[in-house]
Amino acid sequence: MSKLKKRVCVIGASGYTGGELLRLLAYHPYVEVVMATSREYVGKPIHYVHFNLRGVYRNLKFSEASIDVVAKNCDVAFLSLPHGVSLNYVPKVLELGIPVVDLSADFRLKNPELYKIWYGYEHPYPDLLKKAVYGLPELHREELRNAKLIASPGCNATAGILSLLPLVKHKVIDLSKIVIDVKVGSSEAGSKPSIADHHPEREGTIRPYEPEGHRHAAEVEQELSIVAGQGVSVSMVPHAVSSIRGALASSHAWLLQELEDLELLKLYVATYRNEPFIRIVYKVPPGYPDPKYVIGSNYVDIGFATEKRLRRITSFAAIDNLVKGAAGQAVQAFNIAMGFEETAGLQILPLKPA
Amino acid sequence: MSKLKKRVCVIGASGYTGGELLRLLAYHPYVEVVMATSREYVGKPIHYVHFNLRGVYRNLKFSEASIDVVAKNCDVAFLSLPHGVSLNYVPKVLELGIPVVDLSADFRLKNPELYKIWYGYEHPYPDLLKKAVYGLPELHREELRNAKLIASPGCNATAGILSLLPLVKHKVIDLSKIVIDVKVGSSEAGSKPSIADHHPEREGTIRPYEPEGHRHAAEVEQELSIVAGQGVSVSMVPHAVSSIRGALASSHAWLLQELEDLELLKLYVATYRNEPFIRIVYKVPPGYPDPKYVIGSNYVDIGFATEKRLRRITSFAAIDNLVKGAAGQAVQAFNIAMGFEETAGLQILPLKPA
Amino acid sequence: MSKLKKRVCVIGASGYTGGELLRLLAYHPYVEVVMATSREYVGKPIHYVHFNLRGVYRNLKFSEASIDVVAKNCDVAFLSLPHGVSLNYVPKVLELGIPVVDLSADFRLKNPELYKIWYGYEHPYPDLLKKAVYGLPELHREELRNAKLIASPGCNATAGILSLLPLVKHKVIDLSKIVIDVKVGSSEAGSKPSIADHHPEREGTIRPYEPEGHRHAAEVEQELSIVAGQGVSVSMVPHAVSSIRGALASSHAWLLQELEDLELLKLYVATYRNEPFIRIVYKVPPGYPDPKYVIGSNYVDIGFATEKRLRRITSFAAIDNLVKGAAGQAVQAFNIAMGFEETAGLQILPLKPA
Amino acid sequence: MSKLKKRVCVIGASGYTGGELLRLLAYHPYVEVVMATSREYVGKPIHYVHFNLRGVYRNLKFSEASIDVVAKNCDVAFLSLPHGVSLNYVPKVLELGIPVVDLSADFRLKNPELYKIWYGYEHPYPDLLKKAVYGLPELHREELRNAKLIASPGCNATAGILSLLPLVKHKVIDLSKIVIDVKVGSSEAGSKPSIADHHPEREGTIRPYEPEGHRHAAEVEQELSIVAGQGVSVSMVPHAVSSIRGALASSHAWLLQELEDLELLKLYVATYRNEPFIRIVYKVPPGYPDPKYVIGSNYVDIGFATEKRLRRITSFAAIDNLVKGAAGQAVQAFNIAMGFEETAGLQILPLKPA
Repeated sequence: MSKLKKRVCVIGASGYTGGELLRLLAYHPYVEVVMATSREYVGKPIHYVHFNLRGVYRNLKFSEASIDVVAKNCDVAFLSLPHGVSLNYVPKVLELGIPVVDLSADFRLKNPELYKIWYGYEHPYPDLLKKAVYGLPELHREELRNAKLIASPGCNATAGILSLLPLVKHKVIDLSKIVIDVKVGSSEAGSKPSIADHHPEREGTIRPYEPEGHRHAAEVEQELSIVAGQGVSVSMVPHAVSSIRGALASSHAWLLQELEDLELLKLYVATYRNEPFIRIVYKVPPGYPDPKYVIGSNYVDIGFATEKRLRRITSFAAIDNLVKGAAGQAVQAFNIAMGFEETAGLQILPLKPA
Repeated sequence: MSKLKKRVCVIGASGYTGGELLRLLAYHPYVEVVMATSREYVGKPIHYVHFNLRGVYRNLKFSEASIDVVAKNCDVAFLSLPHGVSLNYVPKVLELGIPVVDLSADFRLKNPELYKIWYGYEHPYPDLLKKAVYGLPELHREELRNAKLIASPGCNATAGILSLLPLVKHKVIDLSKIVIDVKVGSSEAGSKPSIADHHPEREGTIRPYEPEGHRHAAEVEQELSIVAGQGVSVSMVPHAVSSIRGALASSHAWLLQELEDLELLKLYVATYRNEPFIRIVYKVPPGYPDPKYVIGSNYVDIGFATEKRLRRITSFAAIDNLVKGAAGQAVQAFNIAMGFEETAGLQILPLKPA
Repeated sequence: MSKLKKRVCVIGASGYTGGELLRLLAYHPYVEVVMATSREYVGKPIHYVHFNLRGVYRNLKFSEASIDVVAKNCDVAFLSLPHGVSLNYVPKVLELGIPVVDLSADFRLKNPELYKIWYGYEHPYPDLLKKAVYGLPELHREELRNAKLIASPGCNATAGILSLLPLVKHKVIDLSKIVIDVKVGSSEAGSKPSIADHHPEREGTIRPYEPEGHRHAAEVEQELSIVAGQGVSVSMVPHAVSSIRGALASSHAWLLQELEDLELLKLYVATYRNEPFIRIVYKVPPGYPDPKYVIGSNYVDIGFATEKRLRRITSFAAIDNLVKGAAGQAVQAFNIAMGFEETAGLQILPLKPA
Repeated sequence: MSKLKKRVCVIGASGYTGGELLRLLAYHPYVEVVMATSREYVGKPIHYVHFNLRGVYRNLKFSEASIDVVAKNCDVAFLSLPHGVSLNYVPKVLELGIPVVDLSADFRLKNPELYKIWYGYEHPYPDLLKKAVYGLPELHREELRNAKLIASPGCNATAGILSLLPLVKHKVIDLSKIVIDVKVGSSEAGSKPSIADHHPEREGTIRPYEPEGHRHAAEVEQELSIVAGQGVSVSMVPHAVSSIRGALASSHAWLLQELEDLELLKLYVATYRNEPFIRIVYKVPPGYPDPKYVIGSNYVDIGFATEKRLRRITSFAAIDNLVKGAAGQAVQAFNIAMGFEETAGLQILPLKPA
């Protein structure tokens, strides 16, 4: 192994997000995955669960999530565990001096009160919340350099924030009346079978879920309020559709004044001009962002439409929920934290047709 | 043939809506289909196009749309023609004294000016617009009795109006800030192949279309403004998803005052209690309306969710775009106009799984 | 209730097959469903599980499968239970003098030895196997009249047998070298969630299952051997594809002598001419049977293709696995047994598009 | 540009196969794409058609297929043109001394007579047929080194040949009775819209096509007969299913003698042990090959199942029809011809879920 390579452990490696981390890290030029944990599959080869990875990771098997082994063998830890479970690991790994990229929601919110409201638990480490960096490079690139605890954003939150950022930053919309109508594929619910996601029930569905307010709204409000320097309220209404991967945020808002589309376009371009993974879709086919054309990649396709007679704007962001919405974004933040090129391991193109 | 049966002609019978009319009318107890027109398939059996109907309509072939034959053989005409084409037939059929159920948009709007704005043509028969009855039984049941010209509503308009009716009728929402975010299946685009609906491009898509303002908004505003007795503004933003059939309207609005969900529920129940095809979904599985569970039927499943902290309400209506959104609604209106039971020919249950 | 109506109980009513029985029996002119059992959902309304049936069965709730209640209230029992569980109910219900339509595999095979080989259990009621009538009307219509125990065929078996019947009956193929390559939708695996049928895993799949020999081969061999008057060997190789409903049997065989397609067609027509649910697809669109166009109905679409240079024939049968492959066929057999029109309750047309 | 890089032109770059070539060559370490032709889209940027490639190929636009420009700027030409059209370009490019990788069927068959039978035209360049190398590395690796004309195999042929190779090579099956039952996704039919592949018609379909003998059988018989040293007859029966990408060949055959599965496995391993893109699936999840888990990659997953009582074997090969079935295989053969690592540009992992 090259001396330049970081020895990475993936804690919680048998789910979809863990599998994506393994896919992206397999050919990452500065990474060697030395540990992949899964209680359920201890001793099984990686491809026992991740059939796509057959033939890769020939010398790795799933193992227990032992802190001792982490201490001995790992330079960086990615945690891909359920909400509430990461809490048990993060402080221990940080104590070893090992940087953590946590893909759960456990360290995303700055205000501990919000954990009670949105997640139903009292946060045991309010100090760590302060130290954690919200891992959205488009907002926190500088803070990510040398970050020790990266709280990787939620998928719907990523799409929601990035769709609205240019409008909120330049304060051209009413910040109190925003509805983010999200449409997501079935992989967002994870790899555990359920009646709701049983194929005969899920395929062909167009089904609202948590329409009384999705918890990712908390992250979106937190981040956009920082950008705006004032409170921003968003309603987030997700819908399950029958894609497997992909999330589209359609963020509906009202412009405070009449603005030509070209003026709005300038705000988008100004905001995202130097972003390696953001592509603006404006008056070229297919017209508006569609997650279908980012699947498998870390891209975010962003665009908007206005209805002038009502001063209504809808801003769209399309992502692969498992890549820019999870594992890819985590790798991007990791690259920044480690001082690597931001695109290392992420130069993967979407398929078409996909 | 029973003397009670109406001899029905379907003009424009080779598309998806025409096919649905043929499916629903095949076993309608008071109907005999005597004519089905299609320029492209003249002389071919019905199942040449509508494979599902193999073995039915053994004595019927596609024919030219001859007004003379209509005059001689038909008691009622259903027109399932493209927008702008119905215009050429409706006046001629009406002159014969034959009632018309028109499934195009050509006679839906009362104000001829709106045809210029939304459809790009000058309407040649403004007088007929006055005589036409907008064929939504839930709003115009009385006018439909003995109606001579029924303008059957658009699919997205049907879902949009029915989702909002209880809220607009009781004026509990801000009538100037409504966004109807619609998700629709591919059959809505019709039976003509296109790149956008080519299977490899359409399957898995989550794609905004006409997000600058969908033309069905005109119908929705017209009908809801009548209900409200004041102007109602709606933004309609449709999205293509990968279902085949089905449309879900997620109508986002702001409550004017705090209302408990049970108070809101009462408004829905009061509005729809006697409607044979409306089913209210409230706190029973699957929680909210999903078009998947109305496919093939004339049902509309309706429900809502509120986010109290923001006074945001989202009201949902789920339909099969080809049934309650087109052919089924046309048959329902026809039944009323003819004095038949409203459910005749429409007692068809959705499938599960579908 | 009309005196002509049979009081029907559906034992095992919460799965997909049970739901289909309830859908088909809801508007059956000679049936009233008086009991629907489900251990898991006792006391819940029918639409709690079968969302499609909301608004129907307003006075029925799921109940325990009590033999006493069956004895008191039911004229006929449909059993839609897992293999091996029906065994426990059938003898008890028959003792009450109540006819049984059993949708499990427990009484399909005549030879008790085959239960050991294919199902792994010793059959406790070999005498009942003799009395049971294999519920395929196309083969056993006469025996079904007044039958007391109907063993309703398996879905893949139905498609397999009906695809091959004309060829086996007329002995035009090599009866020792037949491969039935079946493609089936996800509903065939039932309503219980599993990793294999979790939406992200199942959608887009083309996956062989039980390719070492599917157990429905036993039924197919039994029935075709009777028809042939000699042993017939079939290999059945099913594949899971990403449809929800539908099964296509592609039965590959070798013709014993050169035969023109028109001669073969005559065999098909002769075999099926009077069958109310069989439709032959020959040189009309879409060319060959496709389950897509029978979904929701009791139809079987049948066709064939020959490759002359190799004397290879492939015979196709397309069904909805939950209708002609399960509940619809059970109702058809029940109609015959009760002396009703064979199509009663089954005059339901497939959708297109579906 | 590195001096080591080959300047590549893609002639016929706007279809699905052309798009895949552009995707795979974009990050190929030894390639620069200098020309991408499309009559329809001359002057448009690449992402105008290939939305997935937005942000890549910033300096390339579609151009006319000018032989002069090819002569001046290209080191190697990939031709992704319809059958019968490649014929017009291949000789001209070869005359320039520029190697050609042709993805059409125009140079795959050695016997010109077969073009009349299977493709319906008289082949104008029988001499070139002799020079062309059939571009399946697993069979012709040595001949591919320095090949000037590579005839890249058909997708179904690739799956068919690779599924059968171990059995034919070791002559353990009856070579006269083989049925390759293929299931394929919609991308195989290309990017041109058609009624058959219109989303509402294609999604959910299980539809035989060309079941009287698919033309790829000619390639399969040619290649397997060379391997066997005797005539091999195969029937190829494809079925359209509702995947987008992916082809599974289920090759049904009869073993000449009893063989244990482990003996058979040895034949597979012996045949494919050193192949960089072949993965054998045997008694590990998911049990048998499924194209779902190779999508986007150049992998072929291969496995088999036997039914001992009948001596029937089914051998499976799963590919992405656009990668190992087209563009990926072409790049693999190109790598060999140029002396590059065989996997250059092809180290792309499939997704799961995909």
